[in-house]
Amino acid sequence: MGKKRVMVPAESLDLSAVKYEPPVVQGPHLTGFLFKLFAKLVEAPVIGSLMISSMKKQMKMDFLKMTEVPESPMFRPEFPPQEPEPNVVLLDEDCKPEDRTDFALKCLPDYSPPSSLNREHSAFRYWKIRDYAYAYRSKLVTPATVAERIIAIIEELSQRNPPAPLLISFDAEDVRKQAAASTKRFEEGKPLSVLDGIFIAIKDDIGCYPYISKVGTRWLHKVSSDNGDAACVSKLRSCGVVLLGKANMHEVRMGASGNNPNYGTARNPHDLDRYTGGSSSGSAAIVASGLCPAALGTDAGGSVRIPSSLCGVVGLKSTFGRTDIGGSFCDFSTVEIIGPITSTVEDAMLVYAAILGASPADRICLQPSVPCLPNLQNSDIFGPVRLGKYTTWFNDVHSTDISDTCEDILSQLSKIHGCEVVEIVIPELLEMHTAHVVAMGTDMIHSLDPYWEDSGKGAKFTYDTRINIALLKSFSASDYVAAQCLRRRMMHHHMDIFKKVDVIVSPTTGMTAPEIPPSALTSGETNLPVTAENEKL
Amino acid sequence: MGKKRVMVPAESLDLSAVKYEPPVVQGPHLTGFLFKLFAKLVEAPVIGSLMISSMKKQMKMDFLKMTEVPESPMFRPEFPPQEPEPNVVLLDEDCKPEDRTDFALKCLPDYSPPSSLNREHSAFRYWKIRDYAYAYRSKLVTPATVAERIIAIIEELSQRNPPAPLLISFDAEDVRKQAAASTKRFEEGKPLSVLDGIFIAIKDDIGCYPYISKVGTRWLHKVSSDNGDAACVSKLRSCGVVLLGKANMHEVRMGASGNNPNYGTARNPHDLDRYTGGSSSGSAAIVASGLCPAALGTDAGGSVRIPSSLCGVVGLKSTFGRTDIGGSFCDFSTVEIIGPITSTVEDAMLVYAAILGASPADRICLQPSVPCLPNLQNSDIFGPVRLGKYTTWFNDVHSTDISDTCEDILSQLSKIHGCEVVEIVIPELLEMHTAHVVAMGTDMIHSLDPYWEDSGKGAKFTYDTRINIALLKSFSASDYVAAQCLRRRMMHHHMDIFKKVDVIVSPTTGMTAPEIPPSALTSGETNLPVTAENEKL
Repeated sequence: MGKKRVMVPAESLDLSAVKYEPPVVQGPHLTGFLFKLFAKLVEAPVIGSLMISSMKKQMKMDFLKMTEVPESPMFRPEFPPQEPEPNVVLLDEDCKPEDRTDFALKCLPDYSPPSSLNREHSAFRYWKIRDYAYAYRSKLVTPATVAERIIAIIEELSQRNPPAPLLISFDAEDVRKQAAASTKRFEEGKPLSVLDGIFIAIKDDIGCYPYISKVGTRWLHKVSSDNGDAACVSKLRSCGVVLLGKANMHEVRMGASGNNPNYGTARNPHDLDRYTGGSSSGSAAIVASGLCPAALGTDAGGSVRIPSSLCGVVGLKSTFGRTDIGGSFCDFSTVEIIGPITSTVEDAMLVYAAILGASPADRICLQPSVPCLPNLQNSDIFGPVRLGKYTTWFNDVHSTDISDTCEDILSQLSKIHGCEVVEIVIPELLEMHTAHVVAMGTDMIHSLDPYWEDSGKGAKFTYDTRINIALLKSFSASDYVAAQCLRRRMMHHHMDIFKKVDVIVSPTTGMTAPEIPPSALTSGETNLPVTAENEKL
Repeated sequence: MGKKRVMVPAESLDLSAVKYEPPVVQGPHLTGFLFKLFAKLVEAPVIGSLMISSMKKQMKMDFLKMTEVPESPMFRPEFPPQEPEPNVVLLDEDCKPEDRTDFALKCLPDYSPPSSLNREHSAFRYWKIRDYAYAYRSKLVTPATVAERIIAIIEELSQRNPPAPLLISFDAEDVRKQAAASTKRFEEGKPLSVLDGIFIAIKDDIGCYPYISKVGTRWLHKVSSDNGDAACVSKLRSCGVVLLGKANMHEVRMGASGNNPNYGTARNPHDLDRYTGGSSSGSAAIVASGLCPAALGTDAGGSVRIPSSLCGVVGLKSTFGRTDIGGSFCDFSTVEIIGPITSTVEDAMLVYAAILGASPADRICLQPSVPCLPNLQNSDIFGPVRLGKYTTWFNDVHSTDISDTCEDILSQLSKIHGCEVVEIVIPELLEMHTAHVVAMGTDMIHSLDPYWEDSGKGAKFTYDTRINIALLKSFSASDYVAAQCLRRRMMHHHMDIFKKVDVIVSPTTGMTAPEIPPSALTSGETNLPVTAENEKL
């Protein structure tokens, strides 16, 4: 019967026999000359194919062709209609974003301004959106003044050597203009929303006027002319947000470290020798640095969650289709979303409320349920929440510090809020990982394909990207369909789990921020095991 | 800007500037030794890739990677909800198939039995389903008698040399058993439906008890054990149909001629030296031979329509998802349907009524509109119908005999029934053709992938299939996504056309049945230009 593996139908899978198998990601950790040599070899016609085949075999990613998956393909995440959750406030997708944000404001606990707010030199603390909103309305400060402070810091940072920019496209005059307009609205007593005058950085793969997206490359903006606002950005703009510029990122989103030899690698504000994580590196770093309270990132395989985790801020990957990804670089993706990165959960709620709303096409075919926010005015919202924990997976992290810290949080949720921790099993995580790499990677390759000639047939990409492209291009059309069959299967497993629990809890990343090898700053690096450690959960 | 081609959004396309570009299909016409050599070369590691690349370039199928399609992918044919059509009768997907068939019967014109029916030796004419139904109910004949006649003919045909079987799995005892049960129901005055005792052949890629599907190969049934009824077959069975056996087909559906060196090639009943067309070769031939009034076929790229056309019978490719393809070999396909092949339109309606009904999963995500049939009791149903004709495409056929004949039919529809012929433009047919090959081909490769080892790494396939596999395997995951973006685009173009017309008319195939080269009987042949001529429309 050959090497064929026939999977039993998802609903017949015996969960008691499931064993946790971590993704096997092997690959050399290379920088410098060896790294460049490796990249050139994997791109070479015959030896390259053999190396890629061998890598896929080592990573157990070669099973797709030999596996008969009984489920039919599910090309985008589809959900059957869900019952409304308790303790939530429903939001209207069709109303104005500024109305939705003000509505979200009513879901937050009562606000009292911290005493430090009007002191010139107090200890560092993150200013939340409501702190700015209060300060503007109390005339403690104006958006124009804040703009000058931020511009000064960004210009100071831009002198750094080696460069480590938080933003890779920045137009001080445009920021001043927006801030002046916001200031004027406050002077006239007509701010547009709680977000008026709030500074938000936009990841470089999301369209934002007047910038042309570089998507972290050195050349893409030279062969493109689109400088319009993405759908989400346009919603922020109508709330009065001051769009600060385009945040640094891992080149074409193909990496989880945030390394970017093209413009310099953004540094982790908590330790400048460490990575921010990626690919939304600049977005997380600029929020973690306290420079602005929020940024937008994109997330297909952890690109919002990983840098948020490594930089100690809040990142939200919302349900697929809940935000409109129109106008971002990968706006046809079947996994990617645009999500907020903020310093607090309440700010994530405010920004999320502004940008949410499915695209018209998604509303037809995905039929997302009505969006909602938790009502934090109600102190008892955690009571009935059942937290699903797959312990072997939860504990499969680089250091017990991580699992212990997360365990502590679960204890607090149980003791203080009465949540119940329920042991669950998530089957076939290894298969899910491969299916995810194929789906996400293909979306990326497809978005780059038309630019192949423009990229000097790949030569203008960093070596890191070139290795990833060689790997991802090796997946066939039929692998892609097989991955989608696994998607239906995984969706089934998750729907089953969500019958027993309300939430699946896990650490966000398997390790804390790794150190940046100095040699990786100029040419980048490949370090798939670290990438995997970060993307595992 | 490289070789990149940026398509304008579908809604901005200037139709007046569209020029018809026929699919360019070049490739040698080979049989015998050269054919085998060619197959082995395209499978070889380096030379093979070069040959395939060159073939794709010649066939203008290499544009996918260089083209920026502004539409997002549409992975399955999705339609926005449609307005109900005039002059149709709605059918209930959830009722019993036998009730639905009897309901369909009421849509047909009044029946009067032809005078030839009870004469032993009259000139040949096709017996329609209602002829059998009348003959059984009038006790002119019983299903058991008919079974013996059919069995005798099939056994006689099986002696042919070289073999040219209509059925490649046939169990006379099973047929006798079903016919006896049907005869008993008539004796008891309790036939199950108008289809009771009707003999229907099932294409070999559709599950039908007690046979294990060979899908036209010599080996697939040896590594599979599934001998259950497909969803559509089970509906026919509950109507009392006598399932006659598994009809011959082009190996694994990868071809439009019907050539099958494994079991022998089914011959065209109108000229035994000519092909039937494929891939549902046996299904069309058995109906055209008059042996049974209906057969089921599967159609992804013309596999019902082409053989029906070349054999002069009626074939229906229904809307995607309208029939449940569960239990057929490619039951996750994004293009394939199961459709009836019959000798008359009214029989197609009766069989279609029995088998229709979307699968539960498709009802959620495709939301097909309520199925319907035209009410032929109403003689005026054609009146308001607008027939869309794209003249340059309509006339792009191998012989003016074909376009002239089709033109005559349009004239009759206009003159007698008052239909209006409206000139239309279908843009980007070349792109649609490539997108279709990628989508359909990938479905096929995906269904075969798990059997790769079982197939002797491809060696057990015919040379024809091996060449097709080599071509289709060359498409990357990203090509697949690009093809789906084109699908959304084509769907837009078609929705636009259907605002102006009710029907798009064209010849079914660009040529009549080609002759079978004697050398192609043993080893098969490759003849892509003829395939293209048949699949063009």
